[in-house]
Amino acid sequence: PYAKFKELFKPLPAIAPIPADNPQTEAKVELGKMLYFDARLSGDGTIACATCHNPALGFTDRIPRAIGHGAARGPRNSPTTLNAAFLTSQFWDGRAPTLEAQALGPLQANIEHNITLDKAIAVLKGFPEYQKRFAEVFGGKDPVTPDNLAKAIAAFERTLITPNSPFDRYLAGDESAISTQQKKGMKSFVEKGCVGCHNGPNFTDGNFYAIKVPGSTDEGRYTVTKKESDKHAFRTQTLRNVALTYPYFNNGSVWKLDEAVKIMGKEMLKTDLSKDEVDDLVAFLHGLTGEMPKFTIPALP
Amino acid sequence: PYAKFKELFKPLPAIAPIPADNPQTEAKVELGKMLYFDARLSGDGTIACATCHNPALGFTDRIPRAIGHGAARGPRNSPTTLNAAFLTSQFWDGRAPTLEAQALGPLQANIEHNITLDKAIAVLKGFPEYQKRFAEVFGGKDPVTPDNLAKAIAAFERTLITPNSPFDRYLAGDESAISTQQKKGMKSFVEKGCVGCHNGPNFTDGNFYAIKVPGSTDEGRYTVTKKESDKHAFRTQTLRNVALTYPYFNNGSVWKLDEAVKIMGKEMLKTDLSKDEVDDLVAFLHGLTGEMPKFTIPALP
Ligand code: HEC
Ligand code: HEC
Ligand code: HEC
Ligand code: HEC
Ligand SMILES: [Ca+2]
Ligand SMILES: [Ca+2]
Ligand SMILES: [Ca+2]
Ligand SMILES: [Mg+2]
Repeated sequence: PYAKFKELFKPLPAIAPIPADNPQTEAKVELGKMLYFDARLSGDGTIACATCHNPALGFTDRIPRAIGHGAARGPRNSPTTLNAAFLTSQFWDGRAPTLEAQALGPLQANIEHNITLDKAIAVLKGFPEYQKRFAEVFGGKDPVTPDNLAKAIAAFERTLITPNSPFDRYLAGDESAISTQQKKGMKSFVEKGCVGCHNGPNFTDGNFYAIKVPGSTDEGRYTVTKKESDKHAFRTQTLRNVALTYPYFNNGSVWKLDEAVKIMGKEMLKTDLSKDEVDDLVAFLHGLTGEMPKFTIPALP
Repeated sequence: PYAKFKELFKPLPAIAPIPADNPQTEAKVELGKMLYFDARLSGDGTIACATCHNPALGFTDRIPRAIGHGAARGPRNSPTTLNAAFLTSQFWDGRAPTLEAQALGPLQANIEHNITLDKAIAVLKGFPEYQKRFAEVFGGKDPVTPDNLAKAIAAFERTLITPNSPFDRYLAGDESAISTQQKKGMKSFVEKGCVGCHNGPNFTDGNFYAIKVPGSTDEGRYTVTKKESDKHAFRTQTLRNVALTYPYFNNGSVWKLDEAVKIMGKEMLKTDLSKDEVDDLVAFLHGLTGEMPKFTIPALP
């Protein structure tokens, strides 16, 4: 009875799309991993990408709104870097087109890393080991550049893929990989209309929709486009690993997945989901937790 | 010509001493690792043991004085947790006798984790997964206690041992494991008198010596004992992995190992070490970097 619903879904590929101008190499990924963990790339030497996108916490920070430099609290929730490589735009408002374009933002943001690019490059050049690795990876006369820094981090992020979730194994033919309740949840996910926005391998259509989640005053996509129709619009969030990425929504206002699902029904579909429907949907969403990327913590110079 | 110097040293054991009332088990170490990485054990959910004792940074933070809750900067440098299991007292001033006694200090310190023990226990009890693991490891009716929290973290710390450094391999008979310059450094380390304090497998005698490192006003051991003779006294620091644990001294005032060595000669031995002697000693100390503990980052609930 579930075959026709199942057909509407796609498994998460094990490999993310790689841009032509930033091919993956092992050495580049390793360098990117070092940079991702390196707190010296910050104003006071304590904030790394891994601070807010922490591998121990589903590559998020599990607090409502990010806390960065000087313990300042930003306006938005830290999304996971897991599978960000599949997104067609980065940030809740989609203001960066690629991971490469994204990476230099947080470094300079004064409530995040709070470091200028000049300073960041100077920090890296201070370590012979980084000089050597940038030269090996990128070649050229002066390889330690913001551009290459962004490329290396993006290359590492492209390895943060979580394939083989129970749902993916179900799609691949293992009928017992998910429970009957999860199959019912899948059915509701289609019939209620969630799949209209949360679709494709990464469970997001990449589009922006106006929504006011609890407590939000954020103008979202409007801050990027200045189009009235984009007021309070946010990119459809991936639902991959959503069991790990609490609290939910752009301002992290909701701690529980069942509550987030109820809000989605009400706000996006003008439906009051029943308790059973919510439970089934939550069970289904738990089946989207994949295998975590495996790597060792880098030993920084 | 180096045999008689070599005899004075001891290799780092691969296993730390285990107290009778806190035996190691695999499940306990795994739980301790989770707690070590868990930032929810803090006032604002962002500070874990791993924040300041960061595996990517030699289990330190590589800043002069620790930055904790609310971005407050404490008075002292974060020592490494590597091989802390071999120390006869914990903290620069030795105020905690064991790792178990140590662990609850930083949780409550308002410039570190800034959380009460009651709150920390409540946080842990909020996760069924922690409830389960504490029960499995410790048994009893109410196993999630500050005592057991400390025991689990201590058990994990007892795995943070770095055996098989080049110098240990040299001690074990591999003559070519260290260079001739490093052997000369070993000789100077004995002849100049460094070994008088930095001795035993962990290169510390566990005693306290008065020293005023640059910029220090810290009264050190005196704050614990109130004995005049302990004013400005600090526990002899381990030199294991000292190449990784910069900046140096109790206030992190010195970034370079050669400078730290020069200061030690002058302050502790009333000797102006020559440039060659310093270089040899630094080379020797670089030979004390061992194999880093291998573990995967825990996936926290
Ligand atoms: C202080 C916390 C903090 C730090 C440090 C930080 N981030 Fe973020 N990250 C965030 C927040 C908050 C957002 C969402 C911001 C927004 O949408 O305006 C975000 C968004 C992202 C996104 C977009 C994901 C998506 O779903 O749209 C990526 C990718 C990312 N960060 C990677 C990085 C990298 C790489 C670094 C280091 C160079 C980094 N972050 C440092 C908090 C942080
Ligand atoms: C019209 C588009 C649309 C529909 C329909 C829709 N969503 Fe969403 N969903 C979004 C957008 C946009 C966000 C991000 C909202 C925000 O945080 O501001 C989101 C966020 C979420 C989140 C929170 C994810 C996170 O990590 O913060 C969950 C869970 C979710 N949706 C589940 C569902 C479910 C279940 C349904 C169906 C009952 C559904 N959505 C229907 C667009 C939609
Ligand atoms: C905000 C930074 C910070 C945090 C968080 C932190 N520490 Fe520390 N740690 C320090 C500093 C600074 C010292 C030295 C303090 C002193 O001597 O007074 C220290 C000392 C220690 C020592 C003694 C080592 C030695 O050589 O004497 C151990 C062991 C230790 N910490 C373990 C932990 C554990 C376990 C946690 C978490 C429960 C933790 N630390 C959290 C900064 C931190
Ligand atoms: C009388 C005892 C004593 C002697 C002799 C001594 N040290 Fe030390 N050493 C200490 C103490 C105590 C500290 C911690 C000082 C502080 O930070 O306040 C220390 C710290 C150090 C440090 C910094 C470690 C760190 O991680 O911060 C180095 C390096 C060092 N000693 C090397 C040497 C060398 C090389 C010699 C001989 C030239 C030497 N020491 C002689 C007691 C001694
Ligand atoms: Ca979230
Ligand atoms: Ca240090
Ligand atoms: Ca849970
Ligand atoms: Mg921090």
